[in-house]
Amino acid sequence: MTDLTLYSMPSSGNSYKVRMLLSFLGLPYRHVGMEYETPELAKAHETSTLPLGKLPTLELADGTRLPESNAILCYLAEGTDWMPTDPIQRAKTLAWMFWEQNQHEGTIAVRAALLVYESRKHLATPERLAELLDAGHQRLAQMNSHLSEHDWIGGGAPSVADISLYAYTHSAGTKGGFDLDQFPNVLAWLDRFAALPNHVALDEIPA
Amino acid sequence: MTDLTLYSMPSSGNSYKVRMLLSFLGLPYRHVGMEYETPELAKAHETSTLPLGKLPTLELADGTRLPESNAILCYLAEGTDWMPTDPIQRAKTLAWMFWEQNQHEGTIAVRAALLVYESRKHLATPERLAELLDAGHQRLAQMNSHLSEHDWIGGGAPSVADISLYAYTHSAGTKGGFDLDQFPNVLAWLDRFAALPNHVALDEIPA
Repeated sequence: MTDLTLYSMPSSGNSYKVRMLLSFLGLPYRHVGMEYETPELAKAHETSTLPLGKLPTLELADGTRLPESNAILCYLAEGTDWMPTDPIQRAKTLAWMFWEQNQHEGTIAVRAALLVYESRKHLATPERLAELLDAGHQRLAQMNSHLSEHDWIGGGAPSVADISLYAYTHSAGTKGGFDLDQFPNVLAWLDRFAALPNHVALDEIPA
Repeated sequence: MTDLTLYSMPSSGNSYKVRMLLSFLGLPYRHVGMEYETPELAKAHETSTLPLGKLPTLELADGTRLPESNAILCYLAEGTDWMPTDPIQRAKTLAWMFWEQNQHEGTIAVRAALLVYESRKHLATPERLAELLDAGHQRLAQMNSHLSEHDWIGGGAPSVADISLYAYTHSAGTKGGFDLDQFPNVLAWLDRFAALPNHVALDEIPA
């Protein structure tokens, strides 16, 4: 018996973010998987059951459905250690999360999607892949520089900003073809994050 | 005498968001303009004075510099009517703001930038412009559908989500070449928003 239902795409980093935070917080939830390019997801789009047409969507006990991974993280984290209370720390945490959606996801996740999903492969021209590789490495260099002075993205403790950026960074090498070895602070941060209690891997999907 | 300094790009919708909220809130600030493709901005990049390398950046009285337009909006709006206090309304407001950075800015603002900024014009191929036109119209259709049932993006009152989405939507036709006449609810919302007390236009830059 649980109050929360998560509609999530098992292979997607955006959906993975919410599964991670629910695990860190020890919150039970019902998981409804909708994989990319499946009839389930096509039907959800046809019937407009997902707000903004996107996964993940978190359904609350009263039936309210909340979209957008980073907004769901903020909602669940409020009042916990995962969201800073200090206004400036909060602003910096949110800044990295907006940066994630605008600068990081659009290069690092997009390059992986072009390489992994069958229906995107026609878009994976050499020019586009080269452009995304270069842009993604620039983003990783920004993270590497920041992490030379901070253990965690938001500052002194793990926060929703770390969850948000871990989701697609941890697989940037294996799925996106980025060279993470150039960014030792990013690699050390990925290891620190994966060692946190109740961390779950991308493929650890609740039954 | 003022405690706030805003580093902003006069032509940029992201910077415009913060100038709007500062005006709505009646907060005085020092304005430092750094236009695209100018020596001032090049120098700021070389000397890494802008966090995350981006405009706008808000500098507080103690010298703290906050980047990312939507994060700055959240910081300034906290405790005012521009940020809902109800957790679900807050989550929905943030959802639209993350959507703005991921789905809206990357199509609607990007198409305008390809058409307007000299250094981007080589990227403005017919295929890319057609792809962005189609994607942008899809985003505007989503807003139009939402605004058929709501006066404001966040729900019952103007919020930071309206500011965030107004910034690039108001010029989507004139700069981006999108056909706003297809989206009457969006047009009506733009008019409602522009009629709010202390609304400022993009080119009303403080001295």
